[in-house]
Amino acid sequence: MKFNKEQIQILQDIIYSRRDVRGHNFLDKKIPKDDLEKILLSASHAPSVGYSQPWKFILIDDESIKKELRENFDIENEKAKKIFKNKKTYEDLKLEGIMEAPLNIAVFYEYDDEAVLGMTSQKKMGEYSVVCAVQNMWLMARALGIGLGWISILDEKKVLKTLNAPKNTKLIAYLALGYVDKFYDEPELKTLKWNDEKTLDECVLKNRWQ
Amino acid sequence: MKFNKEQIQILQDIIYSRRDVRGHNFLDKKIPKDDLEKILLSASHAPSVGYSQPWKFILIDDESIKKELRENFDIENEKAKKIFKNKKTYEDLKLEGIMEAPLNIAVFYEYDDEAVLGMTSQKKMGEYSVVCAVQNMWLMARALGIGLGWISILDEKKVLKTLNAPKNTKLIAYLALGYVDKFYDEPELKTLKWNDEKTLDECVLKNRWQ
Repeated sequence: MKFNKEQIQILQDIIYSRRDVRGHNFLDKKIPKDDLEKILLSASHAPSVGYSQPWKFILIDDESIKKELRENFDIENEKAKKIFKNKKTYEDLKLEGIMEAPLNIAVFYEYDDEAVLGMTSQKKMGEYSVVCAVQNMWLMARALGIGLGWISILDEKKVLKTLNAPKNTKLIAYLALGYVDKFYDEPELKTLKWNDEKTLDECVLKNRWQ
Repeated sequence: MKFNKEQIQILQDIIYSRRDVRGHNFLDKKIPKDDLEKILLSASHAPSVGYSQPWKFILIDDESIKKELRENFDIENEKAKKIFKNKKTYEDLKLEGIMEAPLNIAVFYEYDDEAVLGMTSQKKMGEYSVVCAVQNMWLMARALGIGLGWISILDEKKVLKTLNAPKNTKLIAYLALGYVDKFYDEPELKTLKWNDEKTLDECVLKNRWQ
């Protein structure tokens, strides 16, 4: 399969317009089965080390579970507020949309003791495969007009407990998904000048560090 | 920006036809500046925790550096062969294209002591941001007809030494890139029945583990 200029441009547009959505504007509209399947199939077509496909996706719409996650976030975010007490902006930021989003997805890495091709020198590759799956989901969600937010201000151990996760698993990502009426033109933290955009010149080196 | 059915289909086609390319069929053709820039800009538009953009990309075409990496691979792969000695297929697999690929890219996570928004509860988020960038690169490379292979059978410490990487960095991915005449229809390890494809039913749960 070959892709032409217009098709390459579409991929670029999707990549450039993907945003972290934190629940300002989730619409009250369920994600239909078809769209959800497209998102999950994007995940399962991600690269995985040794074709191990070491992912598990927990689809969460139970209100009591979401509430527990939201409480987990609140406790962790109180700690974070103290860390950023000199940066006034932090307090005003909305950093999660757990309750507002019609669907949450917890994404796990699941492993066993068997040797995995490609993981013999770098154990991290299993986890990294699952992160690639999350990025595929994010892009497909964006193309479908579905906002996705990755919520990382959570105590992982508590998440595992809430979801009754077995010992041989690791939480990779906790996601909130829902349709939105619009996506921001640029990352909110860029607009707010929390950090400056880096140029390629700042990020790219030739052959080795000097 | 809204995407229509055809555009969503194009993203799905790119995601589904992306392959890990291990140097069977890299063409002897340099990657022009424009295409390389598209790949790097896809990376720099990845999500990053707290808009930290904690990535560094080392573009490698120096033959002596590539040779050192190739030797690193050979040593690690000898160890791996012993681990998989009961699986005849392993010996026959070509698992890297370091020398054949006109361009290698080492992708690093670079950190400092400053607190990062979104990393206060989960330190891993910095690394994971860089993995998302790699997945964006992979998809853009595929759209451009450029094969990309992620080589993980490498001793990370030696890679850092070869590339003179500073202490506050971690190797995320070592990639080999080049144009190819064709991409396999499905993952090679699927074709070879190294592992079976998992169905969504095997990977998706509702609300929690039972």
